[in-house]
Amino acid sequence: MAGKKVLIVYAHQEPRSFNGSLKKVAVEELSKQGCTITISDLYAMDFEPRATRKDVIGALSNPQFFNYGVEAYEAFKKRSLASDITDEQKKVQEADLVIFQFPLYWFSVPAILKGWMDRVLCQGFAFDIPGFYDSGFLKNKLALLSVTTGGTAEMYGKTGVSGDFRYFLWPLQHGALHFCGFKVLAPQISFAPEIASEEERKAMVASWAQRLKTIWEEEPIDCTPAWYFGQ
Amino acid sequence: MAGKKVLIVYAHQEPRSFNGSLKKVAVEELSKQGCTITISDLYAMDFEPRATRKDVIGALSNPQFFNYGVEAYEAFKKRSLASDITDEQKKVQEADLVIFQFPLYWFSVPAILKGWMDRVLCQGFAFDIPGFYDSGFLKNKLALLSVTTGGTAEMYGKTGVSGDFRYFLWPLQHGALHFCGFKVLAPQISFAPEIASEEERKAMVASWAQRLKTIWEEEPIDCTPAWYFGQ
Repeated sequence: MAGKKVLIVYAHQEPRSFNGSLKKVAVEELSKQGCTITISDLYAMDFEPRATRKDVIGALSNPQFFNYGVEAYEAFKKRSLASDITDEQKKVQEADLVIFQFPLYWFSVPAILKGWMDRVLCQGFAFDIPGFYDSGFLKNKLALLSVTTGGTAEMYGKTGVSGDFRYFLWPLQHGALHFCGFKVLAPQISFAPEIASEEERKAMVASWAQRLKTIWEEEPIDCTPAWYFGQ
Repeated sequence: MAGKKVLIVYAHQEPRSFNGSLKKVAVEELSKQGCTITISDLYAMDFEPRATRKDVIGALSNPQFFNYGVEAYEAFKKRSLASDITDEQKKVQEADLVIFQFPLYWFSVPAILKGWMDRVLCQGFAFDIPGFYDSGFLKNKLALLSVTTGGTAEMYGKTGVSGDFRYFLWPLQHGALHFCGFKVLAPQISFAPEIASEEERKAMVASWAQRLKTIWEEEPIDCTPAWYFGQ
């Protein structure tokens, strides 16, 4: 939709990968709509995943005992967070929609993207206590996970060996995104592109592009245990 | 138990933290039993969490198109994985029990520990296709997650705002550990040490030490959806 701002947080090493294709069509379709798109290409940025003392510029509030959460919160308030964190926070702040594009690693995000969540979504910026879940600070923003899997849709069915795909979405969509207030749109899951035919891969990319045409009309999911674990 | 080998994968920045205390008593108690203990102190090692081309020494099997999973699998078979990965794989190979000691970050492990899982538990070493879940290559080993949380036990109750704590354990215990064949022992969850009294913290540390006295007699959990999501 014209005027909307979209941040794509992208975590794949290979530009010509299937994840790269999904990112590319998203940029094409959203640009066509007149959206402003920003991309955080985490591997290309060599984004730092580790949460360490380096994230605080200057003195710590307690040099004798390092508590990352406390120090990041204090540094956010004093504007003394490392610039790679504040750069990402600016991008999130300006975005109406944040799309996370990544391959599933161990039922979760790759470490480089987990580090983005650990470091960028700090207390004071994304939430406070109180000020989380429905009152999280990012509550006027949309978030969407676009995930590729190694396993097939059958493996990720309710009775599949890997359990329903909604199970592994809980920590990411509820524990992280909903906690920060994001309204979560339904995930875009592209199952097993590596064992799919070229035609099937093209169809998965096309369906993502197709969905994006009406993405601004979508209602967020009901981010409760029932959505994830209900029968 | 005398002769048993234990690997503790530890992910906290502050040695004097509550996580540090839990690690310390585990070393004390298991040493008393005559176990051999190895510790991977991830922050002290500045462990690399990013899964990149640097993980493969020498030529790639496909320099035109980087597929991390494929390249890591080929590098494992050709013994050309980066030494920080093979060093950890040796520690896992020798261990009878792997204890993961970490604070919960976004319903999951900190990125530095996620990177350990992403990079160390590669195809060929921890599993193959086929050769996963009950036939995963680490099937003769035990694994245990010792987790500290920010939220209280009430928040992580079935009807709490954060949902049952078993929900967030699914990707870690089933998707990663069980997939590699590990027999998973019940998690040790220390709820909200930061808001607990000194006495309560001491009691949590003591109960962990107490549990470790009989850890070798414990039966693994039934790593099925029922354990996580059953009523």
